[in-house]
Amino acid sequence: MKLKADRATLLKALAHVQNVVEKRNTIPILANVLLSVKEGRLTIAATDLEIALIEEVAATTMRDGSVTAPAATLYEIVRRQPDNAEIELDHPGGDAPLALRAGRYATKLVVLPTDEFPKLDAGKLTHRFAVPAQALRGLIDRTRFAISTEETRYYLNGIYLHSAESEGVPVLRAVATDGHRLARVEEPLPEGAAGMPGVIVPRKTVNEIRKLLDEVSGDVSIALSETRIQFELDTMRMTSKLIDGTYPDYSKVIPTGNDKILRVETADFSAAVARVSAITSERNKPVKLSVGRDLLVLSATSPDQGTATEELDAEQVEYRATPLEIGFQARYLNDVTEQIKGKVEFCFADGAAPTLVRAAGDESAIFVLMPMRV
Amino acid sequence: MKLKADRATLLKALAHVQNVVEKRNTIPILANVLLSVKEGRLTIAATDLEIALIEEVAATTMRDGSVTAPAATLYEIVRRQPDNAEIELDHPGGDAPLALRAGRYATKLVVLPTDEFPKLDAGKLTHRFAVPAQALRGLIDRTRFAISTEETRYYLNGIYLHSAESEGVPVLRAVATDGHRLARVEEPLPEGAAGMPGVIVPRKTVNEIRKLLDEVSGDVSIALSETRIQFELDTMRMTSKLIDGTYPDYSKVIPTGNDKILRVETADFSAAVARVSAITSERNKPVKLSVGRDLLVLSATSPDQGTATEELDAEQVEYRATPLEIGFQARYLNDVTEQIKGKVEFCFADGAAPTLVRAAGDESAIFVLMPMRV
Repeated sequence: MKLKADRATLLKALAHVQNVVEKRNTIPILANVLLSVKEGRLTIAATDLEIALIEEVAATTMRDGSVTAPAATLYEIVRRQPDNAEIELDHPGGDAPLALRAGRYATKLVVLPTDEFPKLDAGKLTHRFAVPAQALRGLIDRTRFAISTEETRYYLNGIYLHSAESEGVPVLRAVATDGHRLARVEEPLPEGAAGMPGVIVPRKTVNEIRKLLDEVSGDVSIALSETRIQFELDTMRMTSKLIDGTYPDYSKVIPTGNDKILRVETADFSAAVARVSAITSERNKPVKLSVGRDLLVLSATSPDQGTATEELDAEQVEYRATPLEIGFQARYLNDVTEQIKGKVEFCFADGAAPTLVRAAGDESAIFVLMPMRV
Repeated sequence: MKLKADRATLLKALAHVQNVVEKRNTIPILANVLLSVKEGRLTIAATDLEIALIEEVAATTMRDGSVTAPAATLYEIVRRQPDNAEIELDHPGGDAPLALRAGRYATKLVVLPTDEFPKLDAGKLTHRFAVPAQALRGLIDRTRFAISTEETRYYLNGIYLHSAESEGVPVLRAVATDGHRLARVEEPLPEGAAGMPGVIVPRKTVNEIRKLLDEVSGDVSIALSETRIQFELDTMRMTSKLIDGTYPDYSKVIPTGNDKILRVETADFSAAVARVSAITSERNKPVKLSVGRDLLVLSATSPDQGTATEELDAEQVEYRATPLEIGFQARYLNDVTEQIKGKVEFCFADGAAPTLVRAAGDESAIFVLMPMRV
């Protein structure tokens, strides 16, 4: 294998693939990237056995071949070259080291056999559809904060992606929950997604694909089966295993009759939550919402530190139902309001029942928060 | 105590003093700041029993008095107020809570008795002199990286500040060493510093005063005795204990006869060190310098990862003495070259002896590096 490539081009691809590489590896080959030149085209790949990412990279290729080399070291070496450097990679074959040259710098990297590099077989992918990158970002951003980290409930450790009907309209729906809060976000069902199996996309896959989405526009092509999902975006292809489990029937958690509606300016609300909750560094201390006619008083108490309150009035708040008091974790409120612009709408039943939260006038994303005793 | 102050003014002072507060405290009062209004002037103070920082803060005062309140919480509360907020602090006295109001936000903070707040007595300070902030920054930046972190050699856990003579000229000298490298930096001896005791300023004091120096220009007033040092800068006064120990006779470590001189462009040299050392993430692997006539080859080896080399030639390198090979820790080389602009000068005896390093043409700062076997 022999090729030349720009530092910037190579660095970008190495940054992508080395994100997939686990920092602590007991299997040496998993710390390596696979570089292949085949029919004059360079690809770089990495895997952690759960996720595989492969990227095609623009290069001047001189000889076909493939080799694996340490991902983190190769990335660091390329990163530290001057901006405009041209990098030559040369591997004669076998277990000879991989030579990298750039100007008067030269390195010989220890390699591992290509045939040890694990293949993550996508198998037969039964459904295939396209989603605009912008829409996929929205599905992820508005749900992933609610993914459970509890390993015992492994089937909640991802986003449940499935097709559904929303008031008679077919939708692609993403759901995440950790038992304390739930997020449900919808997009119009893309062509080809009808009849797709419901799949649970693991947290790491969600986070890795989200990073890549920052760099692309246009459509992302998604293909999936009951056990695998594959994303194609730009010159990258990510294949991931899915979580093998049954997602619980989340629809039972979503309250339907909550008729006490509080509307409040999101920016004012979240700034007030931040100020009031500053009184305590304890994570699971609630912020209390005392709601009256066009009035919202937020308060928090810490036995060690003291108490704090802030009032929002008719300029920022709209509420006409029975007054009530209810408490939520500040962090849970923040996670939701970060995803909402304009006005946020809280639909309460009472001070002890699950509360529905959404952006006023936006039915595409709903959030459910369990209250805390205050 | 009652006063009003701008958010920005209060926040800046709280940021300064809360740096001194140790994050993990077993003594509750040490987590607090002392707020005092006396004769209409507001001061804010914090201490960790080793360092005390007091700052005078512009405020509209309405009632004298003093109180202590949780430093981190107060800082967070003030930080989260809107940019232009005016903050009112009101403490009726005794163990009543401290009330803080800003707009429609209000908090009551738990207080601790003022008389429990520890005083760090500066005692009688025997010497007093002024140093330009810029010069003090230079003394600190070019020595503190060499401060030892080994607790058994506690007397090396700071910068040794003392008066000395350099080729007949009286100087204020800062020295730090960890046994592997040594830094010695000088400034003209300020008026009032003659006859001062040599003092060892602890690492935390060095780091805290260094942060404050970023915000001031003009002179810093230093006063000291054998056991205390005090810095006055802007409206702040920091008092610190000194390390009670004898600094070793560092002059024996500084080689005098090293006559093999290598001059190299610092930027080229440090970029090459960074690239060559990227081959290994192990901290104490050496970078080898092979020096020949107007030629420098840097190289590094990692048994797991491979080898790397880079050449610097007559365009960047000047060397006329006997060829030699010598190894240094990459990090130690970086720490020194970060403090040098233009050309760096290495003065070697041989491949096994301590090496003198300095900026070419600058006698005010010298560095000694112990070589590693390569």
